[in-house]
Amino acid sequence: MRIVYRFLLVCWLVTSKSAFAQNGIVVFQSDFGLKDGAVSAMKGVAMGVSPTLKLFDLTHDIPAYNIWEAAYRLHQTVPYYPKGTVFVSVCDPGVGTERHSVVLLTNTGHYIVTPDNGTLTLVAEHLGINEIRQIDEAINRLRNSNQSYTFHGRDVYAYTAARLASHTIRFEQVGPKLPNQVVQLPYQKAESANGIVKGTIPVLDIQYGNVWSNVPKSMIDQLGLKPGSMVRVQIFQNDQPLYDKSVTFVNTFGEAPVGDDVAYINSLLNFSIAVNQGNFSEKYKVFSGPEWRIVVSK
Amino acid sequence: MRIVYRFLLVCWLVTSKSAFAQNGIVVFQSDFGLKDGAVSAMKGVAMGVSPTLKLFDLTHDIPAYNIWEAAYRLHQTVPYYPKGTVFVSVCDPGVGTERHSVVLLTNTGHYIVTPDNGTLTLVAEHLGINEIRQIDEAINRLRNSNQSYTFHGRDVYAYTAARLASHTIRFEQVGPKLPNQVVQLPYQKAESANGIVKGTIPVLDIQYGNVWSNVPKSMIDQLGLKPGSMVRVQIFQNDQPLYDKSVTFVNTFGEAPVGDDVAYINSLLNFSIAVNQGNFSEKYKVFSGPEWRIVVSK
Amino acid sequence: MRIVYRFLLVCWLVTSKSAFAQNGIVVFQSDFGLKDGAVSAMKGVAMGVSPTLKLFDLTHDIPAYNIWEAAYRLHQTVPYYPKGTVFVSVCDPGVGTERHSVVLLTNTGHYIVTPDNGTLTLVAEHLGINEIRQIDEAINRLRNSNQSYTFHGRDVYAYTAARLASHTIRFEQVGPKLPNQVVQLPYQKAESANGIVKGTIPVLDIQYGNVWSNVPKSMIDQLGLKPGSMVRVQIFQNDQPLYDKSVTFVNTFGEAPVGDDVAYINSLLNFSIAVNQGNFSEKYKVFSGPEWRIVVSK
Repeated sequence: MRIVYRFLLVCWLVTSKSAFAQNGIVVFQSDFGLKDGAVSAMKGVAMGVSPTLKLFDLTHDIPAYNIWEAAYRLHQTVPYYPKGTVFVSVCDPGVGTERHSVVLLTNTGHYIVTPDNGTLTLVAEHLGINEIRQIDEAINRLRNSNQSYTFHGRDVYAYTAARLASHTIRFEQVGPKLPNQVVQLPYQKAESANGIVKGTIPVLDIQYGNVWSNVPKSMIDQLGLKPGSMVRVQIFQNDQPLYDKSVTFVNTFGEAPVGDDVAYINSLLNFSIAVNQGNFSEKYKVFSGPEWRIVVSK
Repeated sequence: MRIVYRFLLVCWLVTSKSAFAQNGIVVFQSDFGLKDGAVSAMKGVAMGVSPTLKLFDLTHDIPAYNIWEAAYRLHQTVPYYPKGTVFVSVCDPGVGTERHSVVLLTNTGHYIVTPDNGTLTLVAEHLGINEIRQIDEAINRLRNSNQSYTFHGRDVYAYTAARLASHTIRFEQVGPKLPNQVVQLPYQKAESANGIVKGTIPVLDIQYGNVWSNVPKSMIDQLGLKPGSMVRVQIFQNDQPLYDKSVTFVNTFGEAPVGDDVAYINSLLNFSIAVNQGNFSEKYKVFSGPEWRIVVSK
Repeated sequence: MRIVYRFLLVCWLVTSKSAFAQNGIVVFQSDFGLKDGAVSAMKGVAMGVSPTLKLFDLTHDIPAYNIWEAAYRLHQTVPYYPKGTVFVSVCDPGVGTERHSVVLLTNTGHYIVTPDNGTLTLVAEHLGINEIRQIDEAINRLRNSNQSYTFHGRDVYAYTAARLASHTIRFEQVGPKLPNQVVQLPYQKAESANGIVKGTIPVLDIQYGNVWSNVPKSMIDQLGLKPGSMVRVQIFQNDQPLYDKSVTFVNTFGEAPVGDDVAYINSLLNFSIAVNQGNFSEKYKVFSGPEWRIVVSK
């Protein structure tokens, strides 16, 4: 009997919050750029909380005020860090207004410190919501910073993330628990019917000009596409058609001639299209965002 | 009696140099950009001195040869790092000429390793000079680097900073003590008289195109401005007027319509002006530097 | 007798692979840029392998698909890190094709994880090849990543580098030993005859627009050039002459008037040419790569 209790105790310990213990890693994202001292000051504040923290960057080149892209970059990157990692995302056009400052704990054990303005749209959907707490700024705010109204990123978000990541505070000490929901940005989800797959272009692979969709590999598999198959790809901005071609579906760019349009599955396992060693986005004036739609068929 | 001695001993310990003991953190700034290996080589040299150091960046996008901006970025960022942090700033148009290579210890306990060419103008003024030492390059120079004449950043500054930060050398071992003064760049300080406040535009908030002045919140408070008040802002390049408008003074951008010009107090607690969710600098062709003046009145 | 054995044992220990033991430092280079989450995801994977690793960047602004520049940046930077450092370089236009994924151990004790597509041209030549192993991707591949065909940088290179740097695997466990040779990019080496020195322009000092050659200081010394001497510099793109002037050879830029063309020895101890406080590359439309030649004479 005692053994059964012990077994249950172990189960409870393993599945409780302690399974999501912070690991001392903090990852920063923002739309601040790296040309001034803003990002560095956030890291200085974190070092002031605990010099044992390990600080990394996601990106600071989120286009100014582009909450959608902040949401997408988190979605793309968070899962590759170990559980217990604390992320800070500061893309905050409504700074000082009534949006909540929150910390989300995902079902995968990642913490995200951010204004709840849509930034959490995709991680909440894909990684799940374990718990959300509102930051109590009376407690979790850099000392002597209350004369300044505009730099929440440094004085509240970086400071709170560092305190959480360094076990200076427990998750419960962030502030009061909120309902398990976040502000959602509207966007077209991927759907498949009658051999036609529809989706959006959430983001470009900027460095190369490749176009990434939100259509998962599984829907493409259902179309029966195989490496070497031809696939028809149509792209619309709102309702205006901008691209309509049959292109080769490849496993790797090496399978196609340089300069050819090719379709492929990207590193996030989504359907994508590129000019082999060229720039698809520039060539066809195709960009990203909720107003861009893609239609894929055999 | 013995207790009094103990008390005095503790006082001496607390107020002596040991209160400014290096903390193992080194922060790098330069005008090198990040497209080649120069910044990385500086960090490699630091790791070669001691792999226990913690290395961060301030920015490496200081415009080439722009000593004023290097001075401003240090001013903006240094105070947010814990005392004992060692900064390296390499913006050095006169490399190889007679400017001194120095380490400044501020009254706040921060160390700054740099050519004394004006880079220290603002930190010396705002944080105070505790002590300055000239780098003895015969000792504090990467071994086998003396055939090269041009990369002081790597061979002298990064190397000396790493040795200092890692306690490989004491501050006294940097080199001989210099008088407590630094090379000063001339600029217009903020002044207030008869309900009119004057200052300069030391820097832009580049990512957003906001214009930051050097006029402190306290001078604005003396004007009797409150959130919602209108304030007249004039901007001149040398003596040419380029902007003259009455705008709303806000606590947070959320209080004003998108597209409006707004005045506010920035994260450094200085008077600033912006287009809400737009780019003031581009819209009005207003830039920064000692030749830009701002005049604020009710 | 026993002493001789001990002496031999010590010699063997000092000269064996253990002299090149990994030091826990990983340095990342790529052509990914920093605008999305790709670089950050590589670091997340490394932290998942071992949170004790120290992660740095070389550059992520290698122009897309420019293997030559990736090779040059490694050559420029690797020697400044302590031996035992593991580098990851991902510039991989042929991803998924038959190029080998390898780890090179140089004679200087640096490890480089990369596709063997020419990226190793210059480090192999200058630092020497101690041993090369092909990555066994059946073992050295992030778990659950085999559905994705395109992100070797994250799933294979960063993962293998982190395992190697953290002693999770020994060098031998990377995979099978390959012959001591790498894929070489063709380029014109520096040569000197009859008082005329020829070479190429492997790279620009981008931030300043200075032109760097591959002509070493020793060949310039043979010409008998001294600070203050005039030197004739000719530059050709393929066989077309684009520049032909006599300029001053200086130790430091401070010796010449602002705006003058000057020749100097750069931080890599190679012959270079610049406009003092200006941009030589922009002014004369001179760029870099194997098709650019420079001829130097008195």
